[in-house]
Amino acid sequence: MNLNRILATFEAKREQHLEDMMTFLRMETVSTAPEHAPDLQRCAEWLSRQMRRAGLESQILSTAGHPAIFADSGPVPDRPGALTLLFYGHYDVQPPGDLELWTSPPFEPTVRGGNVFARGSADDKGQVMTHLAALSAWHDACGSFPVRVKILIEGEEEIGSPHLPDLIQSEKERLACDYVVISDTSKHSENVPALTCSTRGLVYKEITVRGPERDLHSGQYGGTVANPANALAAILASLHDHRGRVTIPGFYDHVRPISDAQRARLAEHGMTDTQVLSTTGSEVPVGEEGYSSAERGTLRPSLDVNGLVSGFTGHGAATIIPANARAKVSMRLVVNQNPDTTSEAFDRAVRAACPPGARVEIQTHSQCAAYEAPEASDGITAASAALAAGYGREPVLAHEGGTLPILPLFAKVLGADSLMLGFAMPDCNLHSPDEFFCLRDFDFGTRCIIHLLDRLGRIDHK
Amino acid sequence: MNLNRILATFEAKREQHLEDMMTFLRMETVSTAPEHAPDLQRCAEWLSRQMRRAGLESQILSTAGHPAIFADSGPVPDRPGALTLLFYGHYDVQPPGDLELWTSPPFEPTVRGGNVFARGSADDKGQVMTHLAALSAWHDACGSFPVRVKILIEGEEEIGSPHLPDLIQSEKERLACDYVVISDTSKHSENVPALTCSTRGLVYKEITVRGPERDLHSGQYGGTVANPANALAAILASLHDHRGRVTIPGFYDHVRPISDAQRARLAEHGMTDTQVLSTTGSEVPVGEEGYSSAERGTLRPSLDVNGLVSGFTGHGAATIIPANARAKVSMRLVVNQNPDTTSEAFDRAVRAACPPGARVEIQTHSQCAAYEAPEASDGITAASAALAAGYGREPVLAHEGGTLPILPLFAKVLGADSLMLGFAMPDCNLHSPDEFFCLRDFDFGTRCIIHLLDRLGRIDHK
Repeated sequence: MNLNRILATFEAKREQHLEDMMTFLRMETVSTAPEHAPDLQRCAEWLSRQMRRAGLESQILSTAGHPAIFADSGPVPDRPGALTLLFYGHYDVQPPGDLELWTSPPFEPTVRGGNVFARGSADDKGQVMTHLAALSAWHDACGSFPVRVKILIEGEEEIGSPHLPDLIQSEKERLACDYVVISDTSKHSENVPALTCSTRGLVYKEITVRGPERDLHSGQYGGTVANPANALAAILASLHDHRGRVTIPGFYDHVRPISDAQRARLAEHGMTDTQVLSTTGSEVPVGEEGYSSAERGTLRPSLDVNGLVSGFTGHGAATIIPANARAKVSMRLVVNQNPDTTSEAFDRAVRAACPPGARVEIQTHSQCAAYEAPEASDGITAASAALAAGYGREPVLAHEGGTLPILPLFAKVLGADSLMLGFAMPDCNLHSPDEFFCLRDFDFGTRCIIHLLDRLGRIDHK
Repeated sequence: MNLNRILATFEAKREQHLEDMMTFLRMETVSTAPEHAPDLQRCAEWLSRQMRRAGLESQILSTAGHPAIFADSGPVPDRPGALTLLFYGHYDVQPPGDLELWTSPPFEPTVRGGNVFARGSADDKGQVMTHLAALSAWHDACGSFPVRVKILIEGEEEIGSPHLPDLIQSEKERLACDYVVISDTSKHSENVPALTCSTRGLVYKEITVRGPERDLHSGQYGGTVANPANALAAILASLHDHRGRVTIPGFYDHVRPISDAQRARLAEHGMTDTQVLSTTGSEVPVGEEGYSSAERGTLRPSLDVNGLVSGFTGHGAATIIPANARAKVSMRLVVNQNPDTTSEAFDRAVRAACPPGARVEIQTHSQCAAYEAPEASDGITAASAALAAGYGREPVLAHEGGTLPILPLFAKVLGADSLMLGFAMPDCNLHSPDEFFCLRDFDFGTRCIIHLLDRLGRIDHK
């Protein structure tokens, strides 16, 4: 086995892979839109063929929604101790939004300045293509893989993966693996790769406060009944103290202090206060007392109101006491915060803060734990080295403030940690018009995955 | 002059007046709808003719919007000390709303069970007709009036009387009077008349809190920037204390304690706690500590959120930090609370409560004082006696929680107090489908106005 030969095989087939990427990007796999269901089905079949060409047995897994594709190389011949990797990705994309805002049509991939512009180019088709190209190069050059390769590509990520938990549970034998490999995040900056090692969890709630049975005239009744909009404001205001801390009893009980290593890393590579202010147009850094913006946004939990609606919201004035008031409220959780108990504690705190005469109802939209990869694992070491080899720069270990529900799911059901090697630019217009993926990152990313297979192929299953 | 002769003259012409009322009600004088402008003009001309028939000189006063009608009987011959009364009303009506919800069409007045059903029947055309019928009876029976009679009927009451303040200011010489007579309120109950002697003022605000320059992803930025929806909740929650009192500094400084007479009157005739709960579907009486529901709703000031909107308000979950949050907030003021200084104090309190990192903008939609008629005046004494004579029952002196901006305007510009004799049923479907006016109340009301003219005709201007 010669790594250079494999890398050369990729170079030789690069144009073919780029053509395949264009085919992939032309398919309108918008998972939110029922009329695109045939496009998703067609795409799943196309992906299944691509996997077979890369030397894997593949199969389409039906769900109650859009299908997933599963592939398996089978055991590595003569190496019973070889690791198993599960490559995860998704082939569905966000809706394109306002077509007027696109420089070129979202489903006609167009290369400008070394970037391919198309919906899904970065999220996640272009990145999935790095996996397929790397596997294809290994297979063409060697006729085999140094690890057992499995692939799971789903078609419902952009709608919250409603059928994935059941699928992973029911297929957990076939999906069994040592590590999950995911390329659905971004680099640290243009020239610096990133290995994402933690994500925050999410508990998303909807609070409905009810008062009178209908909207009332505020002249006739103002001052005599509980106003649910005032009550909602009192409830929401009670959830933070003046130090920017969440007041829900027990909220911080199991939160682990930020380690010196994490603090140093975030100070060196995290968003600075100045970056937060300039990218958001904010005036002063605001948040939990005693922490930097980088810490507040990644390794500390938070609570935000995401939406409010009550009563009269049109132009001008209407003198009503609204019958109800609603708020969407979400919490980002960190490692060791239990989403179930946090969810219950939230409900208790909201009910306790509800003023007399108002009635509160609470709905839970999602409830998902944070995820943290063990920083000292063989997988992280190999992934770091692979990124360094592919990009020629040491990667940053990144802490992500957002939530990837699949990570705790894979950890819990498969017992496998996730290696998040992201190849997209940090400002690649994700979910926005003119989404793009840099073709240099397709090359770099593919090389990283080739190196990752090489390095993990030298390790034995414990 | 013989009162019975005048009352008999009304009886003899009752059918003609009812026919006139039907003509009045058929005109689609919806002031909000530009396409009805010709209907409003036609109605103004019709009213002007009606006033001439009742023996007054009348004239249409153009405004930048819909016209008003002014009429004047001229001085009372040989009685230089005679009082002057200004009868105020409005000929415009609310839009009919959903026509499906009307039992008979809103502009085809229909009598069922002794009530005439039509848009504007109670608010205010039917009540204006009692004034015209009473004046007509006096004129036909006596050829003159016992007081100098002036009439002002506007066409923009349902859109907030935007041109009335300027009109009253520029016409204040011609509008000069001792009392304003208004029938645009309701009786106390089916058989008990009411003389409304106070209304609350109104300061209506819109608060916009701004944070980041655009909606942000709450994963990426949650915990690092000021969230305007959380900030708005904190601001709104700060405006009340735990005793249900408004915390704006100086808010209660000039509020006059409720007198023993007022307290006794509200205890006897005001809304009971039980009535508030049953009519609003509320669970417990809520409001300023130490006051009854009747007191809280009429002679104590209040502050209510009328509307809220921010960020994501659709179904499900969207993880954003909204760029801004808005609230409509209004205060009902009582006598001696200055709307200008209260408005400024509100703005200062809101700015002071705005957390760091959020920016607040405040817009004022309206600013109007409370009104109180002096309870011991000749006018109130005469109006009470006239209601008692017309209905055969002593009237209740009523305190109204709502706002009539014209009352402080008449008091300030003309120096005249208002006598509010209301003839509508308390549940006459005001602003709703199937609005009605009871024909018995047309008779009772007209007789009350005949008696009022008689009694005030015996008093000399001081």
